[in-house]
Amino acid sequence: MEKSFFRRTRLISQQKYYDFVIEIKKAIHDLKIGKFVMVYDADGREEETDLVIASEFVTSRDIKRLRKDGGGLICTTVYYPIAEKLKLPFLAEMYAEISKNAHYEILKYLSPHDIPYDTKSSFSITINHRKTFTGISDNDRAMTISEFAKLASLNKNGQSLHEQFGKNFRSPGHVPLLKTAKNLLGERAGHTELSTALMLLAGVAPTATICEMLGSNGRALSKNSAINYAKKNKFVFLEGKEIIGAWKKWSR
Amino acid sequence: MEKSFFRRTRLISQQKYYDFVIEIKKAIHDLKIGKFVMVYDADGREEETDLVIASEFVTSRDIKRLRKDGGGLICTTVYYPIAEKLKLPFLAEMYAEISKNAHYEILKYLSPHDIPYDTKSSFSITINHRKTFTGISDNDRAMTISEFAKLASLNKNGQSLHEQFGKNFRSPGHVPLLKTAKNLLGERAGHTELSTALMLLAGVAPTATICEMLGSNGRALSKNSAINYAKKNKFVFLEGKEIIGAWKKWSR
Repeated sequence: MEKSFFRRTRLISQQKYYDFVIEIKKAIHDLKIGKFVMVYDADGREEETDLVIASEFVTSRDIKRLRKDGGGLICTTVYYPIAEKLKLPFLAEMYAEISKNAHYEILKYLSPHDIPYDTKSSFSITINHRKTFTGISDNDRAMTISEFAKLASLNKNGQSLHEQFGKNFRSPGHVPLLKTAKNLLGERAGHTELSTALMLLAGVAPTATICEMLGSNGRALSKNSAINYAKKNKFVFLEGKEIIGAWKKWSR
Repeated sequence: MEKSFFRRTRLISQQKYYDFVIEIKKAIHDLKIGKFVMVYDADGREEETDLVIASEFVTSRDIKRLRKDGGGLICTTVYYPIAEKLKLPFLAEMYAEISKNAHYEILKYLSPHDIPYDTKSSFSITINHRKTFTGISDNDRAMTISEFAKLASLNKNGQSLHEQFGKNFRSPGHVPLLKTAKNLLGERAGHTELSTALMLLAGVAPTATICEMLGSNGRALSKNSAINYAKKNKFVFLEGKEIIGAWKKWSR
């Protein structure tokens, strides 16, 4: 009986492993064709689900879905090595630096040392493409994000990348950039890192556009409601731990 | 006949004047009880309508309306004299300053010198109240904004205001602050200044929470659709020029 019990659990966990591989492969397939996937970080962390899409494919219609069905901030992630080429700072670092100047000391007082769910914030600056008008319409944000993805490709030459960046974009703007931790999932497992890791696994430009899904009760959309939304829209729903598993297994 | 023509036009413009006074009074009344008004800037400027509410009355339900029916960025304005007490910088000024440091020179490249509809951006930093969790849920943003309004009241003592600010809020956060031009409507007539002037006329804390209304066609919501939304929801719809007229007539 003990033997059959173990056999049974082994079979179940084998089945779970197959399911996991299928889900990750489906997510990668969907991201490659510009479809959304959904990412729930973890029980005990933010407990928040984000809509996630590859930045290079973002259209006006996608921005509309993000704001209508997400409701949070529509942000675009930047993989750390690309952020370095673009000379993109973390806001928190920049604030710490400039707060030494007495005129900007308020930033020292506002220091984000007490974030309840993590040790640091991913926020970098906000941008608009220079060809946008106000920067906020669905068309404008789609242009900012898809053009940014062209720049954020891994194959771009770093030498003059920050010049091209400045030539084509202005800051402040209406699309907040989120910079991944230097060691990606080895350091932080927030939506910034989880979604960017998915882009790397999918082999698209390593920038994701993400938006928190909010509920109608004033809080984050519950995990169950998020899973129902995923089913209804045929989107893959992944948890942070699954992405971490896939990253450990398949990333080079 | 010429005489009666003039009499007629005078009567019409008298009627228009009465309508204008009634609309402004209704807007002020509504703002004082925590209701929304709608503000269209001007033909030939952004041509954008914002939902506007007094920050001191913002609830979770209001944030939901802003994100569902607005769809743009949910921002909170700060009247220039209050921003000075809080030591709040314009982002553009801060970026110009810190870009002298070679590590942050990218901000020089990204300079917002070419905004198509105005000469400068109102953006200041983003904040979260320290008691928020992620900062993005409707409950969290309502707390950040209503607590900020308490601090931004005209009667607060400026001596330690920036310390209270830093004690209760962190930056970066999820609510972008918009700082009015120094000479308010005398200098700039964007939604930041128009909505803050309305708060001053209403005698509430001089901070408005505003959000751009987006259309389903990828662009700003059309003026006609915005007027229809106002009628349906019994919100006052004002144009920038009406607010400027009221400001010239009634502000002290």
